[in-house]
Amino acid sequence: MSSVRIAGVGHTHFGQHPERTGRDLFAEASVEAFADGGVDRDDVEALLYGNFMGELAENQGHQGPLMAEAAGIRAPATRFESACASSGAAVRHAVKEIRNGEADVILVGGAERMTNLGTAGVTEALASAADDLYEIRMGINFPGAYALMAQAYFSEYGGGKEELAAIAVKNHANAVENEYAQFQRAISTEDVLEAPPVAEPLGLYDACPITDGASAMVLVSEAYAEREGIDAPVAITGTGQGGDRMALADRQYLARTPAATAAAEEAYADAGIGAEDVDVAEVHDCFTIAEVLATESLGFFDPGEGISAAAEEKTTSDGALPVNLSGGLKAKGHPVGATGASQLIELTKLFRGEHVNSELVEDARIGVAHNAGGTVASATVHVLEVVS
Amino acid sequence: MSSVRIAGVGHTHFGQHPERTGRDLFAEASVEAFADGGVDRDDVEALLYGNFMGELAENQGHQGPLMAEAAGIRAPATRFESACASSGAAVRHAVKEIRNGEADVILVGGAERMTNLGTAGVTEALASAADDLYEIRMGINFPGAYALMAQAYFSEYGGGKEELAAIAVKNHANAVENEYAQFQRAISTEDVLEAPPVAEPLGLYDACPITDGASAMVLVSEAYAEREGIDAPVAITGTGQGGDRMALADRQYLARTPAATAAAEEAYADAGIGAEDVDVAEVHDCFTIAEVLATESLGFFDPGEGISAAAEEKTTSDGALPVNLSGGLKAKGHPVGATGASQLIELTKLFRGEHVNSELVEDARIGVAHNAGGTVASATVHVLEVVS
Repeated sequence: MSSVRIAGVGHTHFGQHPERTGRDLFAEASVEAFADGGVDRDDVEALLYGNFMGELAENQGHQGPLMAEAAGIRAPATRFESACASSGAAVRHAVKEIRNGEADVILVGGAERMTNLGTAGVTEALASAADDLYEIRMGINFPGAYALMAQAYFSEYGGGKEELAAIAVKNHANAVENEYAQFQRAISTEDVLEAPPVAEPLGLYDACPITDGASAMVLVSEAYAEREGIDAPVAITGTGQGGDRMALADRQYLARTPAATAAAEEAYADAGIGAEDVDVAEVHDCFTIAEVLATESLGFFDPGEGISAAAEEKTTSDGALPVNLSGGLKAKGHPVGATGASQLIELTKLFRGEHVNSELVEDARIGVAHNAGGTVASATVHVLEVVS
Repeated sequence: MSSVRIAGVGHTHFGQHPERTGRDLFAEASVEAFADGGVDRDDVEALLYGNFMGELAENQGHQGPLMAEAAGIRAPATRFESACASSGAAVRHAVKEIRNGEADVILVGGAERMTNLGTAGVTEALASAADDLYEIRMGINFPGAYALMAQAYFSEYGGGKEELAAIAVKNHANAVENEYAQFQRAISTEDVLEAPPVAEPLGLYDACPITDGASAMVLVSEAYAEREGIDAPVAITGTGQGGDRMALADRQYLARTPAATAAAEEAYADAGIGAEDVDVAEVHDCFTIAEVLATESLGFFDPGEGISAAAEEKTTSDGALPVNLSGGLKAKGHPVGATGASQLIELTKLFRGEHVNSELVEDARIGVAHNAGGTVASATVHVLEVVS
């Protein structure tokens, strides 16, 4: 089984770019990824690409071949759609293909154009990640669904808005010097608690923003990297995927995300590690409560303890386990289809010493990326390790 | 490398079912596939699922977990979208996973709800499979694009509407007794030539209809089939995928489909066969001209000879190489996301002696399924063989 190396990474600014098309964004990210890795684009054997709302945002489905063209490659291309976990799913399949000797070089990533839809349009588009018949038509939208999950969590385990606020404050602080981030500014606990409500108990600063952006990685086999003399010190050593019932009402628990737990268990077993071995994590904090659920599903904290761990600053940049040093979805932004691959890119830069926050985690060797779709009806987890 | 067997197949009626949801259609197909194969649904390790226009037709993205639920399985699920080749792409990845020992049992298939959109709505939705910026906004829709391909073909190689009509007549004749087909009735050459024009030189009977439907297959490893005593005489022995520039204007030829040629060459090499070994084929005849281009890309006929081969009845049910014994997209119908897997299901039934047209191909051992996305900017080809 071949070791899978991250040879090159590329990333647009995440933010409001309503005038830029998805292909324009992905072209920028992929050009950067090829330049970064020094990989010849003619060597690419496949593009695996994540996108969520292309049909709704720019009347553009069938983005696989379109994005291969944007990236300047001549290889078969496939689009993966798993809502907010779309490029996590693409990464997972790319890892398997390289491991199994199906390919030596794969371009993987994602893009999303969102802000051109406007707030109402994008809220409607995002709703297609939930169950249209049994949730959306009943009046639940995404902030409403995560608000239910937060209420259930508070009810089952305790905690409240003040503890959640710590996550927003932390992630904004982490993003201050991240040039790719949508919000490069710190906020205070008061800012969070005084912000307008979105869906009780979640306020404006508990929610990630609407974002345009793209991410791209060139993944290669270890053999290819050695043959071509490409420096690729970071490997993807574990992959996992989980699924759950689509509608919240059909689940056993609202305050847990078993799809992510299953994905984490599979990824850790795959990499031969345990949760205790993880040095740093990028998790899917589309809402502050989502980061709590993520850190519990990843096994960093027991169920019910994630919220106090956040409040006690165990996951800040100088905590025992830094989470979302990039700023997370909350402050870096969340161009849906680009997010999953973006998380791995942030970890790669951290490990390479190229990240603004690299010095905070100088001894880090193992990182985890957690990408969730909808209200975690789907999830992928990947383990990254420094191998040279 | 494990041999990949088709253990169970399921198929809804293809036709106008505007009152049925996508999940309802896929539930029916998957229930039938489990019953047919005798596979315990608890053994399923993944769902790989194809869908094209769910966001537009029923405000429903993120269909992976939704369809896993509809099928009654508890396994991670991923949606593949490659326009009209969506479930072909899903099948390809399922084949690789089983071969490489990643899984023993995978549910693969697709569904599409279309007729509820109405003619204008569905035409707009289908257009998202082409290049929105450089084709659709310039006034080209799908019939228009294939009309350009037909004009280019006539101009380069000769032939005309009369020869294309032979394909529509053949495919309708093949579907007369196919209970799953949208059109179970024969048509004459005159019917085709006198039909209202859609986009010159293509008339109404040169185009496939708008269709609701679903398809599902249970794929298993040979080891699993043996261990569980499951009779699975048909194997998928070759898989291939190709890509091309999205917009027709960016291609070197309008009268050839190199993405399908690349997919066929890869699939044949994978299976260790040549085009001359193929006994029967299901090809992507969204328009009559598409079947001509398909039979050439598959290597059955040289470029420019596919149209006369069709007119000379080489591909009819009693010809040397029967093509689209199911009725094809033209007469069986084309619920986009379901089509790719449906083609393999038809071949499986033919080989098993369970198809209304099985007796026409009693000695057939090798079949090919050709699935194309958009104007063949993407394509998959699969080789099926009777192995026991």
